[in-house]
Amino acid sequence: MLDFLNRLAQKSRIYLDYAALTPPDIRVSREIAQTVQRHFANPSAIHADGVHARRALSEARARVARTLNAHADEILFVATGTEANNLAIFGLFKKLVMPKTLGGYGLKPSDLHCLVSEIEHTSVLESMRHLSEVGVTVEHLSIDATGSVDVAELRKKLRPNTFLVSVMSVNNEIGTVQPIDEVAKAVRKARKENVLAGMIARDTNALSQVLFPLFHCDASQSPLYAKLSTTQLGADLITLDSHKVCGPRSVGVLWVRRGIELMPIMYGGGQERGVRSGTENVPGAVGMAKALELAEGLREREVARLTELRNYFILHAQEKLAKKTPHVQLFLNGSSDIDSQHQSPHIVSVSFQPTDVGAPPIDHEFLLLKLDARGVACSTKSACLRDEDESYVIRALRRAQAAAIAAGILSAASVPRTPHALRFSFGRWTTKRDIDRAIIALVESLRSI
Amino acid sequence: MLDFLNRLAQKSRIYLDYAALTPPDIRVSREIAQTVQRHFANPSAIHADGVHARRALSEARARVARTLNAHADEILFVATGTEANNLAIFGLFKKLVMPKTLGGYGLKPSDLHCLVSEIEHTSVLESMRHLSEVGVTVEHLSIDATGSVDVAELRKKLRPNTFLVSVMSVNNEIGTVQPIDEVAKAVRKARKENVLAGMIARDTNALSQVLFPLFHCDASQSPLYAKLSTTQLGADLITLDSHKVCGPRSVGVLWVRRGIELMPIMYGGGQERGVRSGTENVPGAVGMAKALELAEGLREREVARLTELRNYFILHAQEKLAKKTPHVQLFLNGSSDIDSQHQSPHIVSVSFQPTDVGAPPIDHEFLLLKLDARGVACSTKSACLRDEDESYVIRALRRAQAAAIAAGILSAASVPRTPHALRFSFGRWTTKRDIDRAIIALVESLRSI
Repeated sequence: MLDFLNRLAQKSRIYLDYAALTPPDIRVSREIAQTVQRHFANPSAIHADGVHARRALSEARARVARTLNAHADEILFVATGTEANNLAIFGLFKKLVMPKTLGGYGLKPSDLHCLVSEIEHTSVLESMRHLSEVGVTVEHLSIDATGSVDVAELRKKLRPNTFLVSVMSVNNEIGTVQPIDEVAKAVRKARKENVLAGMIARDTNALSQVLFPLFHCDASQSPLYAKLSTTQLGADLITLDSHKVCGPRSVGVLWVRRGIELMPIMYGGGQERGVRSGTENVPGAVGMAKALELAEGLREREVARLTELRNYFILHAQEKLAKKTPHVQLFLNGSSDIDSQHQSPHIVSVSFQPTDVGAPPIDHEFLLLKLDARGVACSTKSACLRDEDESYVIRALRRAQAAAIAAGILSAASVPRTPHALRFSFGRWTTKRDIDRAIIALVESLRSI
Repeated sequence: MLDFLNRLAQKSRIYLDYAALTPPDIRVSREIAQTVQRHFANPSAIHADGVHARRALSEARARVARTLNAHADEILFVATGTEANNLAIFGLFKKLVMPKTLGGYGLKPSDLHCLVSEIEHTSVLESMRHLSEVGVTVEHLSIDATGSVDVAELRKKLRPNTFLVSVMSVNNEIGTVQPIDEVAKAVRKARKENVLAGMIARDTNALSQVLFPLFHCDASQSPLYAKLSTTQLGADLITLDSHKVCGPRSVGVLWVRRGIELMPIMYGGGQERGVRSGTENVPGAVGMAKALELAEGLREREVARLTELRNYFILHAQEKLAKKTPHVQLFLNGSSDIDSQHQSPHIVSVSFQPTDVGAPPIDHEFLLLKLDARGVACSTKSACLRDEDESYVIRALRRAQAAAIAAGILSAASVPRTPHALRFSFGRWTTKRDIDRAIIALVESLRSI
């Protein structure tokens, strides 16, 4: 942490890749170090040292729950956001398809239907792909020209046998805030007439409490900039990731609404209420709790500060580029409204294109490396995509923009042709000077291309 | 760590539960702290900070490989020993049963057979139970009266369709060193005539390299006290757990011999060669590497030191109890030979019984709490067993002892009737004074019962 801040202070590097990973806050690291020292024992041990560790874990769980307006027994600690997403999807799926003799509902995969936005994180999309491989019907929800999931389409696509809808809170590549409230409302409405719920309720008394479809929300990118209240959000399962909220590495949280039963995806000692076996990471859980509390306390200030920085970045970059590199046009991916409520303040996704239509396109990866050489770290897409893969988020966005152009809603001139983008993402230690220097580096890099 | 050492120094607590969890070595914690500071970025990011992080991860992987005489590309970092065991078992199982169109071998679960010792860790046994629930034939290997797996029985039970044999290196409750060499030999021999290999080889060229059965060894309890060389051990998959080797929390390693293909149990960004998705825990991996290197350097000295401590504990406890609590008899679980090669030096499992056959049995959990009140932390069984469950390891041992008595190999007097035990487990910071004080506490506790 000190090294990180020192490097920032020396301005040897400008880190604008917070959406990929946030360095842990020093206050988090301190609390973790204390916990490692004080609570070294296995929390399942029955001696005093174990009891102390278990208490520390319970407290961490309660603290996480408090920041989410949730019950402590709804919080499952796992190792990564990826694991939380997998557990939500496969844990529910297994509960539905396992035979009744083994505690499941005994349904066939081919009886089941899922809806997932086409811009989810790979851990959601790949899990869904696997579900479709084993026979589940998985349908994708498209986005509009600003990167927002189409809720009208969701309403149309919901089927009597839809068991899960998965839509993220904020897209990790373009920063679009998704209409979670509306998704939740649509899902709730669908539950009322859900045949699946009826099917289950007929057979098993206990299950009549859980109605399908359920709504899973991957909120990994949200906690620093939006209050996540489980009582208001309307989701049934929520994924959080510690290393996106200035917490420690390798801690994930899955919030599961009371009454929803998941089956484990890993078997063993039955920790985490039997759903996630493996010795608990007590210091990690405490670090996650601290990170979420800090997020809570700093949120209002940080949202204001980063919104200003983001707007400053956009306006300034546009202005400088217009002056210094008139041969290059800058396009914003996501909502083009700089004060938009539909845009998280920590992510700016931009695409560059030669003003001259006949000129060769701008290589965004090459541009990233030029920026990197000038000390600015940003990204072209999610870090969880293989090097050779194009960004499926930007591709989806272009498709939506093409449709909007065809429908006469957008002018062709307002949309770039390139399927590539640069993502600049800001965080707790980003300063106005960083932005100024990043824009200078951007201008220099574009001029040298 | 300092707090832990301080508490040891003040003698406020005597921690004899190292088999459940080892506190991290301060040298490990230091290297982790440095890595957190220096390598904060996502190792999949292509900017310089990401490249640095990726390099740190590669180095950690190479360092872990070196301590195991293995190739770096055979090392998979996961979050826990439980996850490593699950990935070994289900990763292989999925590869075998997934349809060929999806890259699997297209076998039916009911075609498959598994062998597993009855004293494996719950994460192995519960995974196997789940396999049997979905149709695989799972057979258990029993142990002898010293807690050693019966290799003759293994040879008899191996079938043409056995795809996996899972036997741990050292039992976590009674410390018996298992005959891994002989298990490996038996498995290798079985491969030659294996019908399953033939079945697979007929269809797919690439697969003829991998012969079944494979041998998975959960070596979580071993690295501090035995050299694990993958070139000598004869296993095909090995599980390691960082928090058993004075490393950080929540890092596991699965070593997978080159050529063996696993399918993922979690889906996403395809990290760890596509088998284990989720952003990599770079500081954790570096901590694990350091912990294994320290184990390497300290092993010879520690084995000698702890063997002496263990023998001292046994002889002294026997002597003191004979003198001060003649109404109680002490029995050793595992090998009764105090200099045995078949016993890991860090675990002593003992059972107590009234000398008077008519007296009520001694409540071992109550005894543990009495010891705890006197500042000594030990355990009655694996921390990964639910409170209400009896130890299945001790139960298996009693069964084996009863058979040995029936066969005239053991005298009934040398075996306790109680299915309960206390495990004292030692580690890097255990001293002779700790043992002395633990024995005093034990005598006092037994007298007050």
